[in-house]
Amino acid sequence: MSDSLNQLAQRLRDFAQAREWGPFHAPKNLASALIVEAGELLEPFQWMTEDQSRALSPEQKEAVALEMADVLLYLVQLANELDVDLVEVAQRKIDINELRFPAKRR
Amino acid sequence: MSDSLNQLAQRLRDFAQAREWGPFHAPKNLASALIVEAGELLEPFQWMTEDQSRALSPEQKEAVALEMADVLLYLVQLANELDVDLVEVAQRKIDINELRFPAKRR
Amino acid sequence: MSDSLNQLAQRLRDFAQAREWGPFHAPKNLASALIVEAGELLEPFQWMTEDQSRALSPEQKEAVALEMADVLLYLVQLANELDVDLVEVAQRKIDINELRFPAKRR
Amino acid sequence: MSDSLNQLAQRLRDFAQAREWGPFHAPKNLASALIVEAGELLEPFQWMTEDQSRALSPEQKEAVALEMADVLLYLVQLANELDVDLVEVAQRKIDINELRFPAKRR
Repeated sequence: MSDSLNQLAQRLRDFAQAREWGPFHAPKNLASALIVEAGELLEPFQWMTEDQSRALSPEQKEAVALEMADVLLYLVQLANELDVDLVEVAQRKIDINELRFPAKRR
Repeated sequence: MSDSLNQLAQRLRDFAQAREWGPFHAPKNLASALIVEAGELLEPFQWMTEDQSRALSPEQKEAVALEMADVLLYLVQLANELDVDLVEVAQRKIDINELRFPAKRR
Repeated sequence: MSDSLNQLAQRLRDFAQAREWGPFHAPKNLASALIVEAGELLEPFQWMTEDQSRALSPEQKEAVALEMADVLLYLVQLANELDVDLVEVAQRKIDINELRFPAKRR
Repeated sequence: MSDSLNQLAQRLRDFAQAREWGPFHAPKNLASALIVEAGELLEPFQWMTEDQSRALSPEQKEAVALEMADVLLYLVQLANELDVDLVEVAQRKIDINELRFPAKRR
């Protein structure tokens, strides 16, 4: 995984350990928490047009960015619990998508 | 953002451009696609106990890892569209959580 | 659809019309709103054990019931927009599931 | 609850009992299954414009209707487990919304 994601992972491990939250962090629970945050991320967009969603105010963008952070933090914790290298599997998933969805010829 | 997330972001930009998918990638749509993938990530866990979710078979773990990849890829694309630095905001969110949830005294 | 769901549907049509919310109620948006509410419904359960989720306090149950209401209200509004008979298709889906998942012999 | 929702609830109780699925149907798990289905319901809409989502083909509409059925079936089962009267709480939620979002004066 990348250095910066590793740093996040380490910080989240320390955070959970200091609060004795480890027992709650079963992958099932982390995957639930992740989708709850994904819902909070979608919430501000639900009544917007696509164009409005491309033109957020600074305040809206900051709120959205913090929800994105929550999704990433649960994803990193889930990767940690399952010993998954997020960047490696993401690169591999793009490889798969390149085969599934061939680019148009130029 | 981290070098490895930047590389993912660049590869996803090239991927979308080669397929002319940019017009579909409004933040509203990317946030929808992200939660759809978060649902696919939760799906294998829905009837498991917490303990079972901690003891996935290699095949289950690989399937889950690929769903995690999908979530990360939409998160990176959303960050790209909104010009959000994912790692910076994630670090900032941990700062906020440290204030909200003080660690127990030892 | 059932009389009571029809009554809900009519009340929701009147509600949206009085507020001029019809233009926002594209099926895409209602499906987004529905999953946002489904996230709020899952939220109180995310760190619970299964047993804890079977033993909610009256206050927790009331909060959960109101989130269930939100899911139902968006489902009814989506059914209304798409002219779907919810109860008919639900009965039909159980028929399908009975074929997909045969009951154990006694 | 309405007669037709009661009929669905009874049929789902029989269905689960015949398959001995009761132990899996903790409210936590049903709320997870519900949001997984809500994701499958959102999936066909994710790249559509709002207008496209208002103009589904018969095949698209049938697929969407079956996903809506899945959401309703888990909602009814959750209501059953928690002894919630879905229609009563939905009516009550509309009452609350009428106070929160007063209609425009004419």
